[in-house]
Amino acid sequence: MAKVKFTETALRDAHQSLLATRMRTRDMIPIAEEMDKIGYFSVEAWGGATFDTCIRYLNEDPWERLRQLKSEFKRTPIQMLLRGQNLVGYKHYPDDIVTKFVEKSYENGVDVFRIFDALNDVRNMEKAIKVAKDQGAHVQGTISYTISPVHSLDDFVKLAKDLEALDCDSVAIKDMAGLITPNAAYDLVSALKEETDLLVDLHCHCTSGMTPISYYAACQAGVDILDTAISPLAWGTSQPPTESMVAALQGTEFDSGIDLKLLTAIKKYFEDIKEKYLGLLDPISESVDTDVLLYQIPGGMLSNLISQLKEQNAIDRYNDVLDEMPRVRKDMGYPPLVTPTSQIVGIQSVMNVLGGKRYKTVSNEVKEYMKGMYGKSPSPVNPKIAKKIIGDEEVITCRPADLLEDEFEKYKSEGEKEGFVKSDEDALTYALYPPIAPRFLKGELEEEEIPSPHPIDADEGIGIPTEYSVEVDGDVFDVKIMPTGFIEIGGGDVPMVEADPDAVSSPVQGMVTKINVNIGDKVGEGDTIAVIEAMKMENDIQAEKAGVVKEIFVEQGDAISIGDSIMVIK
Amino acid sequence: MAKVKFTETALRDAHQSLLATRMRTRDMIPIAEEMDKIGYFSVEAWGGATFDTCIRYLNEDPWERLRQLKSEFKRTPIQMLLRGQNLVGYKHYPDDIVTKFVEKSYENGVDVFRIFDALNDVRNMEKAIKVAKDQGAHVQGTISYTISPVHSLDDFVKLAKDLEALDCDSVAIKDMAGLITPNAAYDLVSALKEETDLLVDLHCHCTSGMTPISYYAACQAGVDILDTAISPLAWGTSQPPTESMVAALQGTEFDSGIDLKLLTAIKKYFEDIKEKYLGLLDPISESVDTDVLLYQIPGGMLSNLISQLKEQNAIDRYNDVLDEMPRVRKDMGYPPLVTPTSQIVGIQSVMNVLGGKRYKTVSNEVKEYMKGMYGKSPSPVNPKIAKKIIGDEEVITCRPADLLEDEFEKYKSEGEKEGFVKSDEDALTYALYPPIAPRFLKGELEEEEIPSPHPIDADEGIGIPTEYSVEVDGDVFDVKIMPTGFIEIGGGDVPMVEADPDAVSSPVQGMVTKINVNIGDKVGEGDTIAVIEAMKMENDIQAEKAGVVKEIFVEQGDAISIGDSIMVIK
Repeated sequence: MAKVKFTETALRDAHQSLLATRMRTRDMIPIAEEMDKIGYFSVEAWGGATFDTCIRYLNEDPWERLRQLKSEFKRTPIQMLLRGQNLVGYKHYPDDIVTKFVEKSYENGVDVFRIFDALNDVRNMEKAIKVAKDQGAHVQGTISYTISPVHSLDDFVKLAKDLEALDCDSVAIKDMAGLITPNAAYDLVSALKEETDLLVDLHCHCTSGMTPISYYAACQAGVDILDTAISPLAWGTSQPPTESMVAALQGTEFDSGIDLKLLTAIKKYFEDIKEKYLGLLDPISESVDTDVLLYQIPGGMLSNLISQLKEQNAIDRYNDVLDEMPRVRKDMGYPPLVTPTSQIVGIQSVMNVLGGKRYKTVSNEVKEYMKGMYGKSPSPVNPKIAKKIIGDEEVITCRPADLLEDEFEKYKSEGEKEGFVKSDEDALTYALYPPIAPRFLKGELEEEEIPSPHPIDADEGIGIPTEYSVEVDGDVFDVKIMPTGFIEIGGGDVPMVEADPDAVSSPVQGMVTKINVNIGDKVGEGDTIAVIEAMKMENDIQAEKAGVVKEIFVEQGDAISIGDSIMVIK
Repeated sequence: MAKVKFTETALRDAHQSLLATRMRTRDMIPIAEEMDKIGYFSVEAWGGATFDTCIRYLNEDPWERLRQLKSEFKRTPIQMLLRGQNLVGYKHYPDDIVTKFVEKSYENGVDVFRIFDALNDVRNMEKAIKVAKDQGAHVQGTISYTISPVHSLDDFVKLAKDLEALDCDSVAIKDMAGLITPNAAYDLVSALKEETDLLVDLHCHCTSGMTPISYYAACQAGVDILDTAISPLAWGTSQPPTESMVAALQGTEFDSGIDLKLLTAIKKYFEDIKEKYLGLLDPISESVDTDVLLYQIPGGMLSNLISQLKEQNAIDRYNDVLDEMPRVRKDMGYPPLVTPTSQIVGIQSVMNVLGGKRYKTVSNEVKEYMKGMYGKSPSPVNPKIAKKIIGDEEVITCRPADLLEDEFEKYKSEGEKEGFVKSDEDALTYALYPPIAPRFLKGELEEEEIPSPHPIDADEGIGIPTEYSVEVDGDVFDVKIMPTGFIEIGGGDVPMVEADPDAVSSPVQGMVTKINVNIGDKVGEGDTIAVIEAMKMENDIQAEKAGVVKEIFVEQGDAISIGDSIMVIK
């Protein structure tokens, strides 16, 4: 049996999973030469959330990062994660943008494209696959792995065959929630090896703690490639440790041949990197969470949920929301939970519970989903719920991107006219993130600071001295000073207001992206009066009754918490 | 195939490995009832270092802990770790003490005795095994697992057969360094199942990160019992997470039948416990360390070594000491590295490197070892080194404890006369730890504080306010106060002295337990002038030349660092 190969995720998924995707290019480059010696199948170093984070928080050009990495990795292929027709964003882009993006990604340095779709709808992957193949890249089709009453081994094998028919070189089992058991991994890898000629890659997150075992079972079934992260950035919601997997397979028929001693230098380097970014690490991300097995919900969703509910003192609804999530997922035809479906299901569940009534508030994304705009759901959506959400609006059955007009030239010329687009890469950045790209491209973005690794916890009672011996021009006074007043340091952007019984309050925590009315406007029941972006979803806020807008408490761009008043309609 | 059973280590090995053995009984009792519902094979909750820690730091009676736990665990057997003839100490005790200790342990609540010897010398285990069997306890003989040129699968199997011949009920593979690979685990468990009728238990530390896989391979080979720790106290130098192993085996032929939902409450409880004791957790203990595979040295030894070398600015000798350890181990006939041999080999290696000359300073333990007083080494010791260390002194070949006189009654009557021994259990505590037990038994020990989980790092510049608005009887003064003087808070016990070229300095960091000379005494070259206890070893300090004691800088009980001057001889 051939040796097992490794894909190292330190530069993409590992820091996305543990460090909020905040690792800087300047912290990657110094270790690239060492990493290039190892003999990895590939280093995953681009795509996923890295693109977004670069231009939103880091003031880094993602294309420049790619070029710099490419100049360092002389023998190791660079791999990216591409969200099918969503590219590195959260919605479908038209084919001309997909084409241009894949071409430019290849040209700037991507050697291996891992391409997935949250619904496992091949139509959402086929364009990107074709273009990447045309470039001569290694193309890895993807199974978004999940467990549900409608997902079977045969479905996954059929998907792999479809990907093989599209000329993919390999197939990845993407187990974003760490759900795959050793038995399931063994069976699925065995079937894929038997039924296809594809190389098989297993990509799991460690959330449930059983992933190393599933990797081993996959080896026993003939897996070709394992995704791992160097140990300081491993475990928890990240991948299993590279060194441990290499060591475990040494001397077996699966031996990777990787030199453990070479990995030691890389480990030491990333120990320092982890320390540097420690302020971004939520301990929850590192802990074992077998609740993912009980609820079949990714660990990241659970921790998001907890912090969301805590923020608005509704943590007592935690179990209600946990119970609601599988129901919402069922209503939606059991989508695998991965960007963007994880956010869509998660926030809808919260709104269903906190809103007091299911689907009273519905995000635009859920509406689009129900209209078929995300592709074909694994099983049909609940028709009653769909009716409630979209009424008699048409549901599409074609490939969603077929409905999209070409847009690249529009963005390019618009950006050039404005002066901030100077290349096709700039134009792509703009086309993918129209609201945030201009600020970055104009050079107006400032790199955010890396938070202190050891923030001072006010509860710990750092002593402020209260007794002093004060010497003034030679005279000594014993002085006692007790702090008796404090200056409050402000909280959110939205002032606290007494809850007006006629106030419309926010069902979610997020950012006000649109206000559709002015004071004095008449509104009808159900009119959309504002839009709040939360967890990357846009949520229409509707008037609960007809009336006149008496007061508006928020502005566009304001941060808003659950329960905050938006406006008063009387 | 029978279901795999679990031994939960949270109450003994897990907190010994991660939290310096400091968990209090009062933090165990509240969760015992929940734990008792799970259906573990056993809970490991006593023995190892817990006895020592109770009477040294916690001001807790270990016997009382045992009785309290016993009253809570109504259906789950309580397991202890017993160091063979060393019981819960670091040296051999006479047979009457071993007998009494095992009898009283059983009587107070131990159901399962895991009995090991650091050299795998059955003669050091046979007394404890026999007494425990006589009580009706479940007796688990132990293989101290290691890798060396003289350890083979056949040796381990032979040892297991010897243990079976002594009527043991089960055998544990004790892999204290996390060295066992999946393949090795598979082979060893297979052989033990084939060649003996014993139940087989696998006990590993996760240091190398591959342990969950080795556990799985052991299941495939028919292992009966796995040692795991609930996830907040798992990984690193502790055991694999209970929940993850339970989940990984669910639905397989190895399924433990344990209910994951019941484990969730236990997990949440120990999350809080971990937070409470976080100040005791060295991050190194939690990290993956595949260096253990390169050097075959337990992770705990490496971290001890690093902190030792750092303390005396000799971290640049780290690699020299790493290289020296396998040589010392070879000189000593390849003992498995576990208490007490890990300390003996570790400190001798440090002294060999820092002393400038190998075996210039030799601990009393190494001398005893060379005389055969610890039992039979796996292969013969290096005769040249032995000659250098013990000269022509006799080397014993009998069972070491055969040379020991009964001591229980002596300690009992002595303690009763002094008034601090009121029971056989007290007498055992005294007999095991004569230097520290009286203070505890007399009620003079104070429980140490649990260190703050987030110590304030002085480098982080916590601001002390320097400007105040001070209101005095209605008059407001703007006051500026700059701290201009500080009180230094003292460091160690030993004053800094200019290094005198005739000064004898300490080769180790530890505590001065004996000073054999007074000022004005004449000493000869090689005379033992003081004894320093370090890492639980007693080290004779010898005069490097003849002369007269001019000055003595330390007193008995002083803490001392490497390089500190002990005395001046001219």
